[in-house]
Amino acid sequence: MTETESGKPLVVFTPSGRRGRVARGTPVLAAARQLGVDLDSVCGGRGICSRCQIAPAFGDFPKHGIHATPEALSPWNAVEERYRTKRGLAEGRRLGCQACILDDAVIDVPPESQVHRQVIRKAASDREIAMDPATRLYLVDVEPPDMHHPSGDFERLSAALSEQWGIAAPTAPLPVLARLQQALRKGDWQVSVAVFDDGTMPPAILGIWPGLHEGGLYGLAIDLGSTTIAAHLCDLATGAVRASDGVMNPQIRFGEDLMSRVSYAMMNPGGAAEMTAAVRTALTDLARSVAADAGIEPALIFEVVVVGNPVMHHLLLGIDPVELGQAPFALAASGALRLAAADLGLAGIAETARTYILPCIAGHVGADAAAVALAEAPDRSEDLVLVVDVGTNAEILLGNRSRVLACSSPTGPAFEGAQISAGQRAAPGAIERVTIDPVTKEPRFRIIGSSRWSDDPGFAEAVDRTGITGICGSGIIEAVAEMRIAGLLDASGLIGSAEAAGTPRLVPDGRTHSYVLHDGTSTGGPLIAVTQSDVRAIQLAKSALYAGARLLMDELGVERVDRIVLAGAFGAHISPKHAMVLGMIPDCALERVTSAGNAAGTGARMALASRVARSEIEATVRRITKVETAVAPRFQEHFVAANAIPHARDPFPELARLVRLPEVQFGAGGGPRRRRRG
Amino acid sequence: MTETESGKPLVVFTPSGRRGRVARGTPVLAAARQLGVDLDSVCGGRGICSRCQIAPAFGDFPKHGIHATPEALSPWNAVEERYRTKRGLAEGRRLGCQACILDDAVIDVPPESQVHRQVIRKAASDREIAMDPATRLYLVDVEPPDMHHPSGDFERLSAALSEQWGIAAPTAPLPVLARLQQALRKGDWQVSVAVFDDGTMPPAILGIWPGLHEGGLYGLAIDLGSTTIAAHLCDLATGAVRASDGVMNPQIRFGEDLMSRVSYAMMNPGGAAEMTAAVRTALTDLARSVAADAGIEPALIFEVVVVGNPVMHHLLLGIDPVELGQAPFALAASGALRLAAADLGLAGIAETARTYILPCIAGHVGADAAAVALAEAPDRSEDLVLVVDVGTNAEILLGNRSRVLACSSPTGPAFEGAQISAGQRAAPGAIERVTIDPVTKEPRFRIIGSSRWSDDPGFAEAVDRTGITGICGSGIIEAVAEMRIAGLLDASGLIGSAEAAGTPRLVPDGRTHSYVLHDGTSTGGPLIAVTQSDVRAIQLAKSALYAGARLLMDELGVERVDRIVLAGAFGAHISPKHAMVLGMIPDCALERVTSAGNAAGTGARMALASRVARSEIEATVRRITKVETAVAPRFQEHFVAANAIPHARDPFPELARLVRLPEVQFGAGGGPRRRRRG
Repeated sequence: MTETESGKPLVVFTPSGRRGRVARGTPVLAAARQLGVDLDSVCGGRGICSRCQIAPAFGDFPKHGIHATPEALSPWNAVEERYRTKRGLAEGRRLGCQACILDDAVIDVPPESQVHRQVIRKAASDREIAMDPATRLYLVDVEPPDMHHPSGDFERLSAALSEQWGIAAPTAPLPVLARLQQALRKGDWQVSVAVFDDGTMPPAILGIWPGLHEGGLYGLAIDLGSTTIAAHLCDLATGAVRASDGVMNPQIRFGEDLMSRVSYAMMNPGGAAEMTAAVRTALTDLARSVAADAGIEPALIFEVVVVGNPVMHHLLLGIDPVELGQAPFALAASGALRLAAADLGLAGIAETARTYILPCIAGHVGADAAAVALAEAPDRSEDLVLVVDVGTNAEILLGNRSRVLACSSPTGPAFEGAQISAGQRAAPGAIERVTIDPVTKEPRFRIIGSSRWSDDPGFAEAVDRTGITGICGSGIIEAVAEMRIAGLLDASGLIGSAEAAGTPRLVPDGRTHSYVLHDGTSTGGPLIAVTQSDVRAIQLAKSALYAGARLLMDELGVERVDRIVLAGAFGAHISPKHAMVLGMIPDCALERVTSAGNAAGTGARMALASRVARSEIEATVRRITKVETAVAPRFQEHFVAANAIPHARDPFPELARLVRLPEVQFGAGGGPRRRRRG
Repeated sequence: MTETESGKPLVVFTPSGRRGRVARGTPVLAAARQLGVDLDSVCGGRGICSRCQIAPAFGDFPKHGIHATPEALSPWNAVEERYRTKRGLAEGRRLGCQACILDDAVIDVPPESQVHRQVIRKAASDREIAMDPATRLYLVDVEPPDMHHPSGDFERLSAALSEQWGIAAPTAPLPVLARLQQALRKGDWQVSVAVFDDGTMPPAILGIWPGLHEGGLYGLAIDLGSTTIAAHLCDLATGAVRASDGVMNPQIRFGEDLMSRVSYAMMNPGGAAEMTAAVRTALTDLARSVAADAGIEPALIFEVVVVGNPVMHHLLLGIDPVELGQAPFALAASGALRLAAADLGLAGIAETARTYILPCIAGHVGADAAAVALAEAPDRSEDLVLVVDVGTNAEILLGNRSRVLACSSPTGPAFEGAQISAGQRAAPGAIERVTIDPVTKEPRFRIIGSSRWSDDPGFAEAVDRTGITGICGSGIIEAVAEMRIAGLLDASGLIGSAEAAGTPRLVPDGRTHSYVLHDGTSTGGPLIAVTQSDVRAIQLAKSALYAGARLLMDELGVERVDRIVLAGAFGAHISPKHAMVLGMIPDCALERVTSAGNAAGTGARMALASRVARSEIEATVRRITKVETAVAPRFQEHFVAANAIPHARDPFPELARLVRLPEVQFGAGGGPRRRRRG
């Protein structure tokens, strides 16, 4: 180094803004490393992987005090030319390992060249997840064997990983050891390795390929629900979702809800093992199908992250869930689990693949709730936020920066369209939106698969393909709420007669009445009506949900929440207004009730993309205060009080500003009923 | 603590001699811990496991300045009485967790109450191995679940292990998690756990039982030879060998020696996998049979240590051994391997069992040689010691405290009785000892299974059961050496005729002669003779062995060694005198040639018993200088020169003092032949 410090070129990297002087002739990649700039490289600067692409900027940069000319970098070289010819390189891009800094320069690192690029943006919680996967690809040059200084091929590979990438003392499972010698020789002592390092065990080589592996490394984020299993196939380098798919949980044949599956395990010897085998087969099939959708080899899936409620969690692990069916609802293991995917019977993906299962919060509040907590981060919220993951079992989180509480509430399957007379799961043909004219009492609705309302011109043609088949969860919620707004339903939940409420759409149904939403019988279709029993089912479900939220508010000693997030595949489709009319959720300014979509799935993807996210959620879960609804006397009180529409006890000032509920009463016996058991 | 230091009772523990003052009323177990005395306990002082038995001594101990009376300890209590009634307690023994120190006391810790008791005594190398197994049993009391502070049963077990035993952050494989809840409830929140902690990964719970597990924990030490697989079932608490067994390596059907197995793998697609499956099945069967011999559940085997040559090592691991068949003889992995036993397809033992495979030294010098190095510890020897593990492939170690060298030499199977006309493996009926009268030229011999010599009265009756079936390795070595001493064989290895050597036992055999050791043909038995081709086979084998040793001596620049250790199941039976007459080993004072028995098996047992032994051998192997015989020109020179008996070049002064080899010559063409290939 004969240059003085001031004689060295000044380089500024954008968007990081990191700047510094480097020796003339320093490759941009090396300069980035010196200055702590996040610039990717798999081949370690050999001009092979192109991960270090950069975009030099030219002109005057008064802010940086730089006038950058094209001569600031060394000329386009043969390696870059070969790469461009062979694989293409966008205009204005250079390979950071080839272009050397000759003079003051401003260099932009495009997002795809950043290792820790931001991938999962959560507007609601105002945070981002940067790529920090446990499994990464490295290209290494390994010393050939020398019989006079014998050491194993693996030991020389280890030494190379340590020297070239700073990865110390890796291990290799047998399938990698078995492939090692051939890969090294085929690659002429240059191989790509997929190294898994989650910080809890020595780094492990999960895959090996001759030369540069260009097939990518993938991970699966799985949201294992009682009813539906959803999987996202993600690129472990970019975080991009390459394909998503969902299947019904095959355990449904053993019982629709959690408790009936626990009962099945208790009553049938080998029943738990049967359910374990069923779900493992489903995951294996799902992995294969989602890989096929994305057009990638399933053997390139090296990580699987699973979230699910405690019963799903235990059954996947092969643990009898019997303890989860009775107080004190003890989990076999509540912490995060790191396992070989093979131990979970996941076949077809990489033999060496690893699994990460998020921690459970409590016996009734599972890894799915933890994933929601990761995605929605109530623990980072300034506001007091209520996060409700709506499903057969609702997970409820309440808190802010200082404290987060969690519980679950057994809402039953009504919100998913089950146990509803014309109910069905959310699929094309299902009524998902309903309004009822308060004057004419006539309904209009929309079905899944069409954006037209039932009174729009062309509606019949638009729904011709699917037909109108039933009503899904969001549809029944809106229907019941609209019935209440239109005065077809009184505060106790009793449906009025045609005479009392003034519409022929109310028809007698045994000793009660039903409201006919759609009569397709003339054309061989179904009669879709809201029955008294449907209203009762929704009342039970909404009371349970509300009581859970209210119990957490009691625990925290608050009467109001600042905002509400509705999460879950289903939660995303709930109309906040109708949820508030029904009293599913506590009173809140309507614009502060938002939807988070499948937050559990998002949390699973975050944990797949980022080791930091894993340790974060593990720490968060330890800090969460768990509240058990099953034995809390106040839960029962809130549940009973919440049966009425509006609530018998709690005032709903925001709701009152929004809509005035008519004061009708259709009978004397419409008080809250005890929750049904079965 | 109101007592002054000098007012406290003084306690001296024997045999350690550790002494100190403890508060009056301190239980002996607690006092032992305070003073760093090695006193075992699995139950942590609950009076359940009886591992802490101690023997108080009474009387005057002027050396310690103590007069100990029976009142020095608290009286025999109900817990001890219950234990004695239920399970028995030897006279004079107390439970260390129950007996409290009231006055000055001398307390003996019997060997079986020491955790780190000495188990493997190596007189030759003057060292002992203390028990320090990776897997140990612990009794723990676990907090029952509390639904208001939910945490998994596993997390509470972890907390208990940390508090009660200082075991931090253990992991549990799925089979343990699956059994956990039932064990905890059945044991009323007291369970025994087998914890594996080898220092390379977080401690892992490999087994769990309700209450105190009294079935023991076991390990298997396996010496995986090309011909024979030997297994020792050891108690992981005491180190005691509970049963040993050996079976033929089923891979023999794919090729008798290593190179023919490598060829089989090269020539047959799937051939390596076939051999892998064969050996894994054999190990599984062997584990079952050895457990049955000992009368223990195979599921109580939690650790398996395997040693073997590189080809056996690779085939067991499922690695194609093709690279070991050609220069530069690259091992896939040379370091020690820590694997799940399930990954090696070892079934029937504990599902969670762990495997430790010793490091290989070089492409031709395997984990079996490393085990010999561990057992014989040439690196701790003051003397320059030559360790020879005799088998189809001989492993040779030479060195002392300052430096150790290693090589292997392909001796072929002659030393194991193969490729010998009347040869057989060492089994009842095989001639194992031979002498020939130098005057009468008449032989006498002994067979395996009887201690009588063939000219002893009652010999015929003694061998009636087995018959005389053939000659084994040690028998053929002695026969050839004795023929040379008796002048029936010249220095070139040529057998004389009846006329030239003066005995009718020499009979023509084609163009050469054979020496008839035993003619059983009259009674339908075999004719057991030493043929010219047998002598040639032994000459090739002994030349290879000698050349390997001589090459190491060259490398070290020495002309003599101080002592020689013959190792290996077969090495143990070689007569040092005859080995020296043949020139298998370099010249050495006869009394300094010793046998180490199955040193590889001993090394495997050491590694099973002690984590320290594992790190020790890993460090030693890294320091060993590896010498490759296959490409060393001097090896060929030594090999050719070693063909004669005595050697053509090297002087054997010690041998000359022992016996004078007659200077006979039976033909002109008896010079050394080139090694046969096939």
